[in-house]
Amino acid sequence: MKALYFDGSLSLAEVPVPEPRADEVLIKVSCSSICNTDVEILKGYMGFRGIPGHEFAGRVVSAGSRLAGRLVVGEINCPCGNCHLCLTGRGKHCTQRTVLGIDRHDGVFAEYIVLPEKNLHEIPAGLSPFKAVFAEPLAAALEIAEQVHLKPSEEVFIFGAGKLGLLVSMVLGLNGCRYMTFDPNPVRVEKATGMGLHAAVLDTLVSSAKADVCIDCTGNPEGITIAMNHLYPMGKLVLKTTVAVPGNIDLNRMVIDELTITGSRCGPFAPALNLLARGLVDPEPLVSRVFPFADILTAFDHAAKPDTFKVLIDHG
Amino acid sequence: MKALYFDGSLSLAEVPVPEPRADEVLIKVSCSSICNTDVEILKGYMGFRGIPGHEFAGRVVSAGSRLAGRLVVGEINCPCGNCHLCLTGRGKHCTQRTVLGIDRHDGVFAEYIVLPEKNLHEIPAGLSPFKAVFAEPLAAALEIAEQVHLKPSEEVFIFGAGKLGLLVSMVLGLNGCRYMTFDPNPVRVEKATGMGLHAAVLDTLVSSAKADVCIDCTGNPEGITIAMNHLYPMGKLVLKTTVAVPGNIDLNRMVIDELTITGSRCGPFAPALNLLARGLVDPEPLVSRVFPFADILTAFDHAAKPDTFKVLIDHG
Repeated sequence: MKALYFDGSLSLAEVPVPEPRADEVLIKVSCSSICNTDVEILKGYMGFRGIPGHEFAGRVVSAGSRLAGRLVVGEINCPCGNCHLCLTGRGKHCTQRTVLGIDRHDGVFAEYIVLPEKNLHEIPAGLSPFKAVFAEPLAAALEIAEQVHLKPSEEVFIFGAGKLGLLVSMVLGLNGCRYMTFDPNPVRVEKATGMGLHAAVLDTLVSSAKADVCIDCTGNPEGITIAMNHLYPMGKLVLKTTVAVPGNIDLNRMVIDELTITGSRCGPFAPALNLLARGLVDPEPLVSRVFPFADILTAFDHAAKPDTFKVLIDHG
Repeated sequence: MKALYFDGSLSLAEVPVPEPRADEVLIKVSCSSICNTDVEILKGYMGFRGIPGHEFAGRVVSAGSRLAGRLVVGEINCPCGNCHLCLTGRGKHCTQRTVLGIDRHDGVFAEYIVLPEKNLHEIPAGLSPFKAVFAEPLAAALEIAEQVHLKPSEEVFIFGAGKLGLLVSMVLGLNGCRYMTFDPNPVRVEKATGMGLHAAVLDTLVSSAKADVCIDCTGNPEGITIAMNHLYPMGKLVLKTTVAVPGNIDLNRMVIDELTITGSRCGPFAPALNLLARGLVDPEPLVSRVFPFADILTAFDHAAKPDTFKVLIDHG
């Protein structure tokens, strides 16, 4: 089959179709999308070698599967199933896990992938694979509410109006709270306001403005400090940013103001599919461009440009 | 009246009896205790000048008070009552607040103090003032459960077996969870085990041992890193330590492992008094020595010694 292959440099290669193990099924990829993590992997993140890509929608090929012939999306963490973390509901943090297109498990920029059947979620009837492919990043946005009690009466500041920041903004808008999304880049702010979201250029945020919850989706190391400066005492800070240099935060202020900081990563797929199927989250305005699979190298160049939002790949 | 006075150096001085304002009452102090914060204040913490001390039990003198003649303990934060934080239940974080014996409000190492009547809690019948004086630090221990959902099925590591660490250990023991308290100092560990608490010397903690909840009561800047190293993914870290130098923590690890860190400070008095009155928390073994008020300067010298636990002052 044809696949995008990364071994220090990126190329379109001919590779064998993967063989599912006992617990896995074979899936034909219908569409995929490029995440910032994929771009980071090409810079060396996780030391990954192989086929990258983890956001996909596809059709189950394996005849023996209860999902044979169905359109599915899939969770990306493949845990061992037997360790203390797996047995206590924390499988996505299993220290033995592989991760689709990120860590020792070939990813979705290919004709076919294998994944454990238990990772799969059937796409609800009527939901296009080109929307369902947002289940993974939308699940990451929903993980915030999975971890932190977000009260409708609270005020929320979201820092960063990139792909994740806008998905988070859409989700926050659904809970009724007052929220405002800040980004230094006016193009991103315009995208957000064009989607009906509450957003403003970061410069307009006065230093005295405070929120009960601040969410850092900036993807840069200054994000957490900015977010902390705009948090009320007893406030909650959710950290979505991973950066190369560990940040320095004011731990005294954390204690004196009784702040809570929560690191947040992958989330639950089922509610993400529900929101997409109900049309309550419409990711279509986030799509900058759709490329055919044959043009995936060009698609990566496009995805790396600063004002690009989501780039989708149509696997045909 | 006689009072301990700090103006850069500490002395026993003759000062006027304080005058209660409209919302305040006059209280005759029965007993007080020395907290690490008091020792820090003598080193310049908060730039405080005046009468230090914030842990007390006493009798209300003001005849017009609903608590006239009653034995009380009192919350130490005196908020403005009118700002957004005060009006949303976060008065202890009011930016205009004064704090008993810590910030622009004379403290309890004196014959008399004034406090707002709404700060006071009557000591339950039968509870000695020499135990009730622990309401304030015990409330700080209970604040952990006020902020963080501590499940009985979780395993907890407590770092630091000083006064606060042992009160936290006593409280944790009541919720049924497995906990273990670690301290590098064998004298403290012996004190803890002598009180029937689960404690061990820090050296015996192997690097692979992990807990669902880690509580840092070490009072030193390395505490948070040690605690983080022993936390399972999705774990909760409670930070009780304030230190002069802001610490460096691994924020990437926070996101990847989805850790939550909560800063924790003053807590609720009512449940603290309940636990003391029910005898479920007996602070008596924590008392290293009781000094008469006339010997309070000697008491401070004693409190600063490394193996001293709680020093109480009998105001007679």
